[in-house]
Amino acid sequence: MRIDPPFRRILIIGVGLIGGSLARAIRRAGHRIEIVGYGRNHLNLQRAVELGVIDRFVTALPVAVAEADLIVVAAPVGSTATILRAIRPHLAPDAVITDVGSTKGSVAIAARETLGGALSAFVPGHPIAGNERGGVEASSASLFDRRMVVLTPLTETEQGALARVRALWESVGARVVEMDVEYHDRLLAATSHLPHVLAYALVEALTRMDGGEEIFRYAAGGFRDFTRIASSDPVMWRDICLANAGHLRESISAFRACLDELDGMIRDGEGDKLVELFSRAKAVRDRNVK
Amino acid sequence: MRIDPPFRRILIIGVGLIGGSLARAIRRAGHRIEIVGYGRNHLNLQRAVELGVIDRFVTALPVAVAEADLIVVAAPVGSTATILRAIRPHLAPDAVITDVGSTKGSVAIAARETLGGALSAFVPGHPIAGNERGGVEASSASLFDRRMVVLTPLTETEQGALARVRALWESVGARVVEMDVEYHDRLLAATSHLPHVLAYALVEALTRMDGGEEIFRYAAGGFRDFTRIASSDPVMWRDICLANAGHLRESISAFRACLDELDGMIRDGEGDKLVELFSRAKAVRDRNVK
Repeated sequence: MRIDPPFRRILIIGVGLIGGSLARAIRRAGHRIEIVGYGRNHLNLQRAVELGVIDRFVTALPVAVAEADLIVVAAPVGSTATILRAIRPHLAPDAVITDVGSTKGSVAIAARETLGGALSAFVPGHPIAGNERGGVEASSASLFDRRMVVLTPLTETEQGALARVRALWESVGARVVEMDVEYHDRLLAATSHLPHVLAYALVEALTRMDGGEEIFRYAAGGFRDFTRIASSDPVMWRDICLANAGHLRESISAFRACLDELDGMIRDGEGDKLVELFSRAKAVRDRNVK
Repeated sequence: MRIDPPFRRILIIGVGLIGGSLARAIRRAGHRIEIVGYGRNHLNLQRAVELGVIDRFVTALPVAVAEADLIVVAAPVGSTATILRAIRPHLAPDAVITDVGSTKGSVAIAARETLGGALSAFVPGHPIAGNERGGVEASSASLFDRRMVVLTPLTETEQGALARVRALWESVGARVVEMDVEYHDRLLAATSHLPHVLAYALVEALTRMDGGEEIFRYAAGGFRDFTRIASSDPVMWRDICLANAGHLRESISAFRACLDELDGMIRDGEGDKLVELFSRAKAVRDRNVK
């Protein structure tokens, strides 16, 4: 039984890893939905058409926005306000807007500042999926399979809009959970934003230690895995760090407290305490991270 | 052309991931070398025989040591002194001793304290390979393929012994490099020991933040990769942290300086500096870590 697609024409603003993967996943689901792309880089959009990711692209927003019943903002979170401001005047009466940004507090502020009466049509979202390779070339129809998509509806968000966005994500294989903006940002600061900052800091620290890059010759598999996320897009991560600065800095502080404790145990030769902490961490990870 | 095996009978003390993988790799190379295992856990040794990893195991060291022309110490570095002291009285006149410990300064001290006249037969070594799963079950004949094996000969180490250990590692596919003990320990503190401490600290910090373990449900692939090494063996890593405390604490300190800088940039909204640092780290990693 074919499920009715919740939308007929989707405009994706920013056809990169996430926007492109959503488009591919919609195709794979067999929905008869036209997918239109918009972005700053025409070569990238052209490539997305060649790859069959989108049906076509536009170089101007007004008509494309007016014709879409869903607009997906899939650009770095720092540009959300600009994009919402640009689409606002052209929205069709029944259009729904969603986004895929990694921070939701800043997106909620941007939406309140820019969307006016269309705020009820806005469903902030965040698929917890991705990898360090960006761009449409890395996009994949299976990126969201069984992955969590967090929706953080605002008090203004209309239930029908929320239901339709939920239905779209579920139809492409994702597991949708709802939570409030604040909780999302605190959670993601710890599980995603903090690890990225640590990976960047580690590579930077090693580069400074060595002077050259000789040191990386001796890095084993653990290091490769550990620093993979330091190959993520710098602009995207600048935006995330600044947009979620408060929660991220709290996470950094909590991490630093644990690191300082460990440093003290090493200094004082407290082997039993080290085994205890390492064992607890290993058990928690083995239980929870598959 | 079959290369002559540099040894005829090898005693491996500690048949876990590294010891077991060395045994498997020697088999794969087709050497006619008898491989004897010793360890504290008889069930593990029995399993190693069943898996075809070792030819047989012994439950007492004296005869097995006397009959071996190579003894490989493949136990956590904290037990190196105890093991060397136990084997010393039984060594054959031409026997060579090596180890696979992740720290070399502590191993050099242990060797000097325990080996006496046999010190010249000791070739400290460290294969830079492994994974978070320990034990003989996880061992693999290909673990050392094209991987770096660092040998850190002491001034007392006899050149013939060094050459034979080098030949063994090269015959199983590893790339052997020599460096001094101090440089090795500084290097590995940065590329391996520090990342492990950071991964343990991150998991611990998240556990404390959440109270429960709900937070880990929302961890994506980056987190999984980042914390994989926190599933490593707690006792092995206690030993490494304490054995290389000085260099490790210097690395922690260098890392903390970078983290504090990043934290300051986030606090002050210095987007350009964040992009600069993230871009540099990404470029260094992309260039050096495959």
